[in-house]
Amino acid sequence: MSDARKSVLETIRDIRHVNTEWITRARQRQRSLTKPPGSLGRLEEVAERMCAIQERIHPDVSRRRIVVFAADHGVTVEGVSAYPSEVTAQMVVNFVRGGAAVNALAGVANADVWVVDVGVAAPVSVGSGRARLIQRRVRNGTRNMAQGPAMSEPEMLAAVAAGIEQAEQAAEDGVALLGLGEMGIGNTTAASAVTAALTGLPPSRVTGRGTGVNDANLARKVSVVERALAQNAPRPNAPFDVLQKVGGLEIAGLCGLCLGGARRGRVLVSDGFIATAGAALAVGLSGAVADYLFAAHLSPEPGHAVLLERIGQRPLLDLEMRLGEGTGAALAMNVIGAAVAAFTQMATFESAAVTDAPGPSEGPPDSGR
Amino acid sequence: MSDARKSVLETIRDIRHVNTEWITRARQRQRSLTKPPGSLGRLEEVAERMCAIQERIHPDVSRRRIVVFAADHGVTVEGVSAYPSEVTAQMVVNFVRGGAAVNALAGVANADVWVVDVGVAAPVSVGSGRARLIQRRVRNGTRNMAQGPAMSEPEMLAAVAAGIEQAEQAAEDGVALLGLGEMGIGNTTAASAVTAALTGLPPSRVTGRGTGVNDANLARKVSVVERALAQNAPRPNAPFDVLQKVGGLEIAGLCGLCLGGARRGRVLVSDGFIATAGAALAVGLSGAVADYLFAAHLSPEPGHAVLLERIGQRPLLDLEMRLGEGTGAALAMNVIGAAVAAFTQMATFESAAVTDAPGPSEGPPDSGR
Repeated sequence: MSDARKSVLETIRDIRHVNTEWITRARQRQRSLTKPPGSLGRLEEVAERMCAIQERIHPDVSRRRIVVFAADHGVTVEGVSAYPSEVTAQMVVNFVRGGAAVNALAGVANADVWVVDVGVAAPVSVGSGRARLIQRRVRNGTRNMAQGPAMSEPEMLAAVAAGIEQAEQAAEDGVALLGLGEMGIGNTTAASAVTAALTGLPPSRVTGRGTGVNDANLARKVSVVERALAQNAPRPNAPFDVLQKVGGLEIAGLCGLCLGGARRGRVLVSDGFIATAGAALAVGLSGAVADYLFAAHLSPEPGHAVLLERIGQRPLLDLEMRLGEGTGAALAMNVIGAAVAAFTQMATFESAAVTDAPGPSEGPPDSGR
Repeated sequence: MSDARKSVLETIRDIRHVNTEWITRARQRQRSLTKPPGSLGRLEEVAERMCAIQERIHPDVSRRRIVVFAADHGVTVEGVSAYPSEVTAQMVVNFVRGGAAVNALAGVANADVWVVDVGVAAPVSVGSGRARLIQRRVRNGTRNMAQGPAMSEPEMLAAVAAGIEQAEQAAEDGVALLGLGEMGIGNTTAASAVTAALTGLPPSRVTGRGTGVNDANLARKVSVVERALAQNAPRPNAPFDVLQKVGGLEIAGLCGLCLGGARRGRVLVSDGFIATAGAALAVGLSGAVADYLFAAHLSPEPGHAVLLERIGQRPLLDLEMRLGEGTGAALAMNVIGAAVAAFTQMATFESAAVTDAPGPSEGPPDSGR
C-alpha cells in the first residue's frame, strides 16, 4: 500500500463524531445570557456547535486560515469555460501577491491565505508573498473526463494526501478556523459531474451558468457532463471512485483538508459549489466530517443547494456570490467569530442584574419585547 | 415654531438623492477587477452604492458607530411583553457596562456603541462606560397608545431632534457607517402598529410572536394594536402623525438618526423590525433617505419583510435574529466592510497580468470557470 493511500485510510478511520454533551452544556450557558431565549437565531446554533467541536465552553476563533487548492482541468478543451486554462496559474500568482478577492476578504476576517498547487497546468513562477505558496503538484491538470478518468487512483490519493497534510499543518499551527478555497478554470464542470454522480440527479439539474453562459453554452456544458458520466460510470456510493473519474485535483485536495481537519478537530468553513463538492465527498467517506463543517454561503449554481441538502448543511449567507477562492469562507468566518464573541462575552442575567422573563414552568411564555 | 420642529423640517428639506454617476464609475472599476463580472454578487452592489453615497471611488469604512435609542412604552400595561418595563433601564446599564450582545458584536465590527436615553421610564444610574451614555429623555416612556396618542407632537419632535443631533455628532466625529440600534420593552407592539398604519395591512398580518408568545398572547397583542389604531386613527400618508400616535420615543430617535444621517451623507445600517420602522418613517418623510440605507438583516417578525419591501430594501443577512439592539447592524457592517475591501484592494486584470474573458462584443459570453 502506498504511503498516500495509507495516510488517507488512517485519517478516515480516526475521525470521530463530536460529543453532543457539549451542545447541552452550551445551551445551558446560552439560556443565562442577557437576551430573550433564541433571539440571536443562528448565531446561537453556531456557538453551540463550536463548543462541541472544540470541547470547551469558550471556543477559540483566533487563528484562521484559508487554504486555496489550485488545479487545472483537461475538460476545458471541450470549451466549457470562457477563460483559458492559463488563468489558473495567473490567479495563483495573483493570490500570492495579494491582489485577489480572497486576499481582501481574508484580510477583513483576519485569516491567512495559503495556496497549494496540486495540479496547475502551466508553470507558476512566484515565491511566497502575501500568501504562502506550497508546491504539491500531482500532475499538470487532470485528463479530459469526457474521454476517460480525470485521474488515476494514485494521483487522486496523492492530492487527497496533500489536503490532509495541510490540515495537519494547520493543527500544528494552532489554526482554529480552516477555510476551504479553490481556483481552477473548468472546475464548475467537474463539481457538476461530482454532484450528478453522487446524487443520481440528471446533469441538467445540477449544472449551472457559472459566471454567465448563454443557453447554447450551458447546453454544451451539460452534454459534456453527461458524456463524462457515461464514459466513466462512477459508482454513486464510492466517493473515491467519483473523485478519481470526474473530480479534480483541487477537489481532491479539499476533500483531504476536510478529512484531516475533522480528524484534528478543526472547524471547517466551506465555501461555494466546488468547495462543497470536496466537503460532500469527505462526508461520504466519513459521516462525522459533517460535525466539523459550517456551510459559508449559498451560490446561485443549482448544484450547490443540492449538495448542501445532501450533507445536511444550511448556508450561513446568501449574497449571490459565485467566485470561489474561499471568498465565502472568509465572510462566514466573521459570522462565526461574532457568534462566539456574543456567546463568550455577554453578561448573564445574574451578573448584570437584569430581570429574566419567567420560564414556561413559572408563568406565561415569553411575549416579545 | 419650536427649535426642534425647525431643526427637523430643515433637515428633511436638505436631504439630497445620491448622484448615480458614481454608480456608473464604480461599475467601470468593478469590471476591471480580477474576477468574473458579477461573481461577488451583492458585495458588488454594496460597494457601488458606497461609492455613490460617499462620492468617492475608494469608500471609507473606518469609523463605525451604533447608536442605541432606549425608551419605554406605556402600552406594556396591556400585557404585550413577558419582560417588565424595568428591563429597559437594566439593559441600558448592561449596554454601558459592555455586557450585552450588541457590545460583543460591535466589538467584532470595530464599532463604538452609543446609547441615547430618549424615554426610559425608570431612573438610569450609570455614567458612561464601555458605551457612551447620552441623556435626552423626553418623557418617562410613552403613554398607552391603546387609550390615546403615545406622544404629543412636541414630544415626538424632541425625540426626532435627538436622533438628528446624534447624526450630526457622528458626522463631526468622522463616522462613516452609522448603525441603528434600539432597546425598549414593548417596542415590537409599537413597530407593528406603525407598520399597519403605514401600509394599511391588518394588524394580524404584521404582528409577530416577538421573543416567543403563545397563540393566546399573540391574539392579545394583535387586539391591542387594533385598538391603538382605532383609538388614534393615524393618517397613513403622514409619517409624523403615525409616529406620534402609535410609535415610540426610540423609534422617533431612529427616524431622526436616518434623517440627519442622510443629510450628512452617512451610510445608514438598519437593524431589525423596530429599527426599520424608524427608517421607514424617515423614508416616508424624504424618499432620498433610502439612498443612504442598507438593510442589515431579515427578522422573523412578519412585519419586517413588509416594511423592507415598502422601502425597497433587500436585507443582507438572514440569520433568524430577533434581538434588536443593533446586533444585526453590527454584523452587516462586516459585510459592508468586506465589500469595500474587495472593491478597493483587488488587482485589475491589467495590473496583475491576468487574461480577461472576451466581452460580449468580442466573442462568446462568459461560460463559467
